[in-house]
Amino acid sequence: MPHEPTTREAALRQASGILDFQTRGRGLMEVTREIEAWIRETGLREGLLTVLCRHTSASVIIQENAALAVRTDLEAFFDQLAPEGPGRYRHDDEGPDDMPSHIKTALTGVSLTIPLVDGRLALGTWQGIYLFEHRRAPHTRQLALHLIGS
Amino acid sequence: MPHEPTTREAALRQASGILDFQTRGRGLMEVTREIEAWIRETGLREGLLTVLCRHTSASVIIQENAALAVRTDLEAFFDQLAPEGPGRYRHDDEGPDDMPSHIKTALTGVSLTIPLVDGRLALGTWQGIYLFEHRRAPHTRQLALHLIGS
Amino acid sequence: MPHEPTTREAALRQASGILDFQTRGRGLMEVTREIEAWIRETGLREGLLTVLCRHTSASVIIQENAALAVRTDLEAFFDQLAPEGPGRYRHDDEGPDDMPSHIKTALTGVSLTIPLVDGRLALGTWQGIYLFEHRRAPHTRQLALHLIGS
Repeated sequence: MPHEPTTREAALRQASGILDFQTRGRGLMEVTREIEAWIRETGLREGLLTVLCRHTSASVIIQENAALAVRTDLEAFFDQLAPEGPGRYRHDDEGPDDMPSHIKTALTGVSLTIPLVDGRLALGTWQGIYLFEHRRAPHTRQLALHLIGS
Repeated sequence: MPHEPTTREAALRQASGILDFQTRGRGLMEVTREIEAWIRETGLREGLLTVLCRHTSASVIIQENAALAVRTDLEAFFDQLAPEGPGRYRHDDEGPDDMPSHIKTALTGVSLTIPLVDGRLALGTWQGIYLFEHRRAPHTRQLALHLIGS
Repeated sequence: MPHEPTTREAALRQASGILDFQTRGRGLMEVTREIEAWIRETGLREGLLTVLCRHTSASVIIQENAALAVRTDLEAFFDQLAPEGPGRYRHDDEGPDDMPSHIKTALTGVSLTIPLVDGRLALGTWQGIYLFEHRRAPHTRQLALHLIGS
């Protein structure tokens, strides 16, 4: 990527859609490839990608894509920061893992924006996009994608 | 929303503005309706919405819009994570709740981006947009809004 | 900034690029001016700016730009929340400060979007953009910038 600003005059358009993912319960699941495949389908090569996780007990983050132990440590950290526990939360209708899941979602966020340059996401070498499932049980999760560009 | 990418060729334009909110002191305040009304005023139906909270002691998050207890538990969690306390922080010129407010803002964030599809925000069924006031006292808070699309 | 939505019909274009920063090790480093200078180079005056930190052990946040003690307190808070410690993490190949850095990055985030209105970022009076270095040693860090607008 060039360091000086590269300005493009091409006519702009936009694309949107949904990707479904089946999680295996609590943990980080990489979704970079599926998102890149979706981008290729749009035919756009320069622009801005937005990823929105449509849930309140799962989030999307950008994290290290190399060392598996990073993911394990991250999961353990968040489990310790927002533990389950009887009597700890008022909201427990949906099970002891529900309120910790909302907290983890608030801490890690559900929307990401990433530039697309020359057909590639402008992520760093070690960055990947992860769906972070916070519930114990497997769930079907939706990411809403939007791409504006040329 | 369709799952395959839907590409739109319509000419794009953008809109921007500010919404003011009067908070009632510490806590989560839903602002989804006011933002949706603003979007309708722009006349745009497909695009990308950005919400920026223009403060360092209040944030914007997407959270559960159904169970009130979720909000209470979230507020209690953040109060416990970044407590007030004499001698705990160097920065206390503006009162004991000021530095915890900056910390909570760093943890939860001030900018959100959300796709707009067919005139509706691509939020999940249980998601709402919340202004999270971290100061004890009521404040007037500004959200800067930007919408680009067609 | 006007409160009602201001819609602009001008033809849109986009610019992208990279800014390099040399950090001095752990801590917050303001980058607002460098980003504003980059925006001026693009010639765009209305639009949406995206900042993506291309690393997994540094983040970008919007924080208080006035009181220095806020930065010190923020750094101390995150050091306490995700401390170094022998045996605490499985991932420690790159040193004791590496895994705490990944955790802090997950908590504070690597992507920001900010509206540009009338040639100025729509930040509040007390808001600045900060590169948050989480590693002990100085590093060269890249921010990928993208601006779409007119």
